[in-house]
Order: sequence, then C-alpha cells, then structure tokens
Amino acid sequence: MRHPERPPEPGKFTRREFERRVERACRLMTRDKLDGILVTSETNLEYLSGFTTQFAWNTPTRPWYFLLRRNGSGVAVIPEIGVSNWRSTSWVDEILAWPSPRPENEGLDLLSKIVTGTRRRYGRLGVELGAESRLGMPAGDFLRLKRMIRPVQMIDGSAVMRELRLVKSKAEVARIRHICELASDTFDALPGFFNVGDTEKDLVRKFQADILLRGADKTPYTAIGSGRGGYNSIIAGPTDRKIGAGDIFLIDTGSRYAGYFCDFDRNYAIGKVRDPVRRVHDLLYRATDAGIAAARPGNTAADVFAAQARVLVDAGIELGNVGRFGHGLGKNLTEPPSNMPGDDTQLEPGVVLTIEPNAMYGRGKILVHEENIVVTVDGAELLSRRAPREMVIIDA
Amino acid sequence: MRHPERPPEPGKFTRREFERRVERACRLMTRDKLDGILVTSETNLEYLSGFTTQFAWNTPTRPWYFLLRRNGSGVAVIPEIGVSNWRSTSWVDEILAWPSPRPENEGLDLLSKIVTGTRRRYGRLGVELGAESRLGMPAGDFLRLKRMIRPVQMIDGSAVMRELRLVKSKAEVARIRHICELASDTFDALPGFFNVGDTEKDLVRKFQADILLRGADKTPYTAIGSGRGGYNSIIAGPTDRKIGAGDIFLIDTGSRYAGYFCDFDRNYAIGKVRDPVRRVHDLLYRATDAGIAAARPGNTAADVFAAQARVLVDAGIELGNVGRFGHGLGKNLTEPPSNMPGDDTQLEPGVVLTIEPNAMYGRGKILVHEENIVVTVDGAELLSRRAPREMVIIDA
Repeated sequence: MRHPERPPEPGKFTRREFERRVERACRLMTRDKLDGILVTSETNLEYLSGFTTQFAWNTPTRPWYFLLRRNGSGVAVIPEIGVSNWRSTSWVDEILAWPSPRPENEGLDLLSKIVTGTRRRYGRLGVELGAESRLGMPAGDFLRLKRMIRPVQMIDGSAVMRELRLVKSKAEVARIRHICELASDTFDALPGFFNVGDTEKDLVRKFQADILLRGADKTPYTAIGSGRGGYNSIIAGPTDRKIGAGDIFLIDTGSRYAGYFCDFDRNYAIGKVRDPVRRVHDLLYRATDAGIAAARPGNTAADVFAAQARVLVDAGIELGNVGRFGHGLGKNLTEPPSNMPGDDTQLEPGVVLTIEPNAMYGRGKILVHEENIVVTVDGAELLSRRAPREMVIIDA
Repeated sequence: MRHPERPPEPGKFTRREFERRVERACRLMTRDKLDGILVTSETNLEYLSGFTTQFAWNTPTRPWYFLLRRNGSGVAVIPEIGVSNWRSTSWVDEILAWPSPRPENEGLDLLSKIVTGTRRRYGRLGVELGAESRLGMPAGDFLRLKRMIRPVQMIDGSAVMRELRLVKSKAEVARIRHICELASDTFDALPGFFNVGDTEKDLVRKFQADILLRGADKTPYTAIGSGRGGYNSIIAGPTDRKIGAGDIFLIDTGSRYAGYFCDFDRNYAIGKVRDPVRRVHDLLYRATDAGIAAARPGNTAADVFAAQARVLVDAGIELGNVGRFGHGLGKNLTEPPSNMPGDDTQLEPGVVLTIEPNAMYGRGKILVHEENIVVTVDGAELLSRRAPREMVIIDA
C-alpha cells in the first residue's frame, strides 16, 4: 500500500465540509420528523458545529449546547468563557451565552427558549439517547429540560448522528490516514527506543511521547499487555511489570489528530517466538487479510466478522472474549458498526473500520491483530501500514 | 515551600483508603435516605470501586456500572471484556458480566435485577443527576432503567459524591502533589526546549512529551495562548501561530497521574515585558498570594474569591470573564467548589483548590495566574511550585 505525500495540514476542512453535513442532517431530520437536533457530546457537537476545544470536554462544570434546526441554521448555547473560542472555530454565528458557573441554571432557560421558539412542524426534538451515545450535560438538567420544553417531545436522534458519521468525507479520511501514519511510524521506531528491562509504564511513556512529537494531538488510549510467551489482557496496562527475554507484548493505541482517531496494535517478541504462538500469529494474519478482503460495498459488518472468524474456526481456534472483530472508527475510538453476527450495517465507500481478529491459546493467553481501513468502491484501502508478516523480534 | 522526597509510587492506595471511602459513603447514604448509590462515570466509579482502566472511558460502546449498597458491599455490572481488568484493580469481588456489545440490552437486565434485589429501607437509589455530573451510559438506557427498577426511585446522589470527594486523603494529596511537581519541572524546563519561531502546536507537542517522559500518565488538557504583548484567550489553542520576539504566552496544563490532575499555568515573555503587563502581572501575583492566604479552615470558597478580587478591584482592574477565581481539583480537572461569590462551601483540611485570578487589560487582553494548594489546619500548602515573582523572560 503506497501512502501519498503528506500535505501540510492533512484533511483541512473547507466550508463545504460543514455545508454537506448540514444538508444531509436536514434531510435525515425530515425523514425522522424532527424539527431540530440538540447535541451536547464532544463528538457530535464538534461534528455538526465545527467548534473545537480541549477545554469543554475536560471539565464537567459547564455544559455546551448546539441546536441544528431543520432549516439548516444552527445556534450555540454556551458559557461566556467559550465565546471567543467558538467564534474562531465554528461556522455558526448565532451564539447565546450565559455567565457560568451558575449551578442553579446552567443555560437551561436560554436553551429551552431556543427550543420552544424553533419552528414546529413535528413537535419533536432529536437528542442523544441511543446506543453508544453519552450526554454532555447532567442527567438532572436533562430531565428538567424535558419538562421545560413541553409540548415539544424529546426523541432519539442518535440514528441521525450515526448515519451522518458512518460515511466519512475525503477530508475526514485524510485525517484518520494521517494519524494512522504517525502511529505506524511510532510502531516502526519502537525497537529503537525500547530497552530490555523497561517496565510497561516506561515503554508506554516513550511511545506516547514519540507519537506526540511526530504530530499527534493527543494519545488518550495506549494499552499494553506483556507476559512470558504471550499476554492475557488487551485492554489493560501499563503496569510496573518489566519486559524481558521470552516476553511477547502488545501495544494498542488510540491516538488523535484534528479530532480523529487511529485504533490499531502491534505485537513484538523479545528474543524468540515459540511455535504455538507463531501458529496463532499466522492464523490471525490470515484472518486479518480475510477481513480486509471482505470490507467492500455490498457486504455487511457481520460479513467482515464472518470472513475473519472462518479462518480461525477452520483451524480449531477458540475466539477471544472481545465480542467482535473490529468496529467503526472516526471521531470516537470505537463507533458503529460492530463487526459481529447480527450487525447488518451495509458497508459503503467512506466507511472506516478496524479489522481486529483475536484468539485464545495456551493457558488464558490472547493474541490480537488490528488494522484500520477505509471502504472504497474497489474494496478496502489500508490506512494503517500493514503489520509485518512475521511478529517483530527485538534482540533480548 | 520545601517538597518532600518523592517515594517510588507516590500516594499508593492501601485497602484502608477504600474502607474509609465506603464507611463515609454509607454514613452519607443513611443521612440522605438512600439504599445504595449507582455510579457510571469514570471518576465516581473509580473513586468508589478502585477499578482503573483507560479502555472503558475511551469507548462509549459499552457502559460500566457500579452499585455500592448502604451495607458497604459493592457489585460491578460490567462487560465480559473487562472482568480480568476489574479483578486486578478493584477491591470488589462481586461481578456480574454480560457479553457486550449487545445494543438491545447493554447490561440493563442484570443491573435492574441487582437494584431491585437490594435490601429496601427507603426505596431510593442515588444516581448521578446533579451539577457537574455526567452519566456514563446512554440517556435512553437511563430512562429505561428508571422504569425497570420501579417502585425504587432514582434520587440525586451527587451530593454524596461531592461531599466524599471534597476532602482528599493523604494518599490522594500525594498523587496531586506528584503530578504538580512533574508539571512544575516541565514548566522550569520549558525555556530549554522552546525555540523562537516554534508554533503553538510545536511547543505544546514538546511540552506534552516532556511531562509524559517525566512520569505523567496523560496530559488531556494543555492550552496555550500567545500574542504580541499578551494573549486574548486562556482556554484555546494550540494553533499554527508562530511565537516570536515581543510575544507573551501562557501554557495551562491539566495533566494526570494515577487518576488525579494538576491544573495550573505559567506565563513567559519573549525578550521583554512592557510596563502595563508588568503591572497586571504584579497585581495578579499579589492576588494569588491573597487567595493562598485566604484558603484556610473556617473560610469559604467565596472568601478565597473575595481575597483575590479585592487586590484587583482596589487597583481598578477589570476582572476576566472566567466566572470564578479557581475551583476544586482532584479526579476531575475542575470539581466543586467554585471560588466565586455565593459558593459557601466551608474549607477544611484536605480540600484541594486552584487559586486562579485573572484580569483584563489593553484591548481585549487577559492575563491569568494559577497555583494549586491543599488546605491544612495551618492554612494552605502549595502543591505547585510557586511561579517566579517576575514573569519568566526567554531571550528573543
């Protein structure tokens, strides 16, 4: 897979990026009979409004509200402290602000006035209620707002957001590709900065520093598993365990660039790889290939699971306890769909997925591979640099 | 302020740490007539159960539930993928797990059975509803659970969590002190790794890498403001703006160690500091001193505000638009109380605060100072290394 030259600001959004999002959102609102959609979570608020901030999502003191009306106009209801930050990042000019903190009424009066003043065709407001969503406001305020906006009803709007975000634009894919390339570079560099005897914590510190210096904005998720002949957890760590000869370790990173995540892992062995591991590694490599091949328009997320699982099941391998073999990827580290039986999400060009088969072996050991791809008309295109065919061996 | 020698694992929790939390929680539950308290957010769940994970909070796909009963027993209702991670970090042995993802019922059947099976004296379950709280589950599932557990009522339990977390234990203070020391070291080192002509992004990358290599676990929040003769935002950035001669810049970091934050800033000037800035800087320095002096048992958060504001108002300075002059600090970057008029939270030994006066000057410029302190019987003790008396000047 050839990687194109990196532009100075990969995936820079034009005004058109947001126009397209709003046009699609309005069509979906009409389909679902919503007069508007209210978003409060980091990813959905940033997706619709463009507002970019570290501040809002690191402090739960103040909530931030964005209402997109079905006519395509938007209004921010935000704390005064954020107004200049909003103006410099969002396409939305209509801002209502209140002096915050004001715990007895954190913007609810402004917000309910805006909601009830919105042109009412259906009397229904979309809010984040459904699977994999989170509110960015206190639940007590949510219940209060529900009463304040009557007779307007709150309806689950997460289907709209899910559908909007499932298919990524070229610029979004460029951002994900960029962070995947940075992570690929850090994984390639790892044997150079790892020292035998490093603890998991030492190694994760160096890993995180390396990817930040290469250009990642944040590295919120960097898990590690290590152990003699293999590891037994893929979502834990780092611990104070020293990594030494005979060990195998995994690093899995969810790092972020310009609001978009990568999510993939690499495995390393210190000194040698024993035959049973070599076999599982080989099967997972082939399962990954099969998953990548199945990630094409016309197939479903369940098909991507089945293609991976077949390779393992045919070899008599016990599947891991992760519950799925990959998932959607974008503004969240994990987002719909799930590559698992029953998820009939149709793949189409622009869908970004992780391909993530895992297998149990030995006494409670697990091995996992992971790559990131984007579905195109011609099938999957790798965003991560494909892992080496054989597990990377670092001298003991 | 002398800083004690750093132990190998600052603020390591003993079993007693959690016993104390549970004892206090049970007393407060009885006071508030709650049969139990259900927590779903990262900070409250970690606070009560000890469960430590990067995974759960970076992916909204799967919710994680912890119920603490009024008799002091706890039960985890979590996805199967997290069981081994739970066992290796939490004191709680009772675990109910379901195979997740399962969007049609993400643990709700298990959870409602546990809630309705809990010994009922009051018929009231505390949940995270109040100011500055966030649910770690979809709002739709929250509404569904509300119906499923009837006749048990959901009551705001955030007063209990707020009161528990307001006063930090010695181990908690040691963790906050440790991350403050690491950040102080990085701020001291900054003139050595900053190059004139660095963009804000370049500098923030180096800053974040530096603090991670020193031992921080994460640096979720690192804001920067820069400009000729001063900056005009304290919560934005980093941007592609190049920092050069005549600039003043601020870095404000919320970095984390073992689940606890620091939150303070430093100001730097390239080449020179002009007189008007020098004057505001001097006033803010004195306002900070006044805030630190006022942060003692018997005073309120409002008193800490008033002491700082008096210095500025007496000098005819316009206060900034931040809404308060500091706040609580701990497992969240910002937590109660707020140093502002009307916040009558009584300070007592173990309360950790930021002291954060800010002032407007020139045309839309703002300057802010910030330190972190812990209230002791003898008054405030600095956790951050006190900023230099004069703004640090870096050669142009």
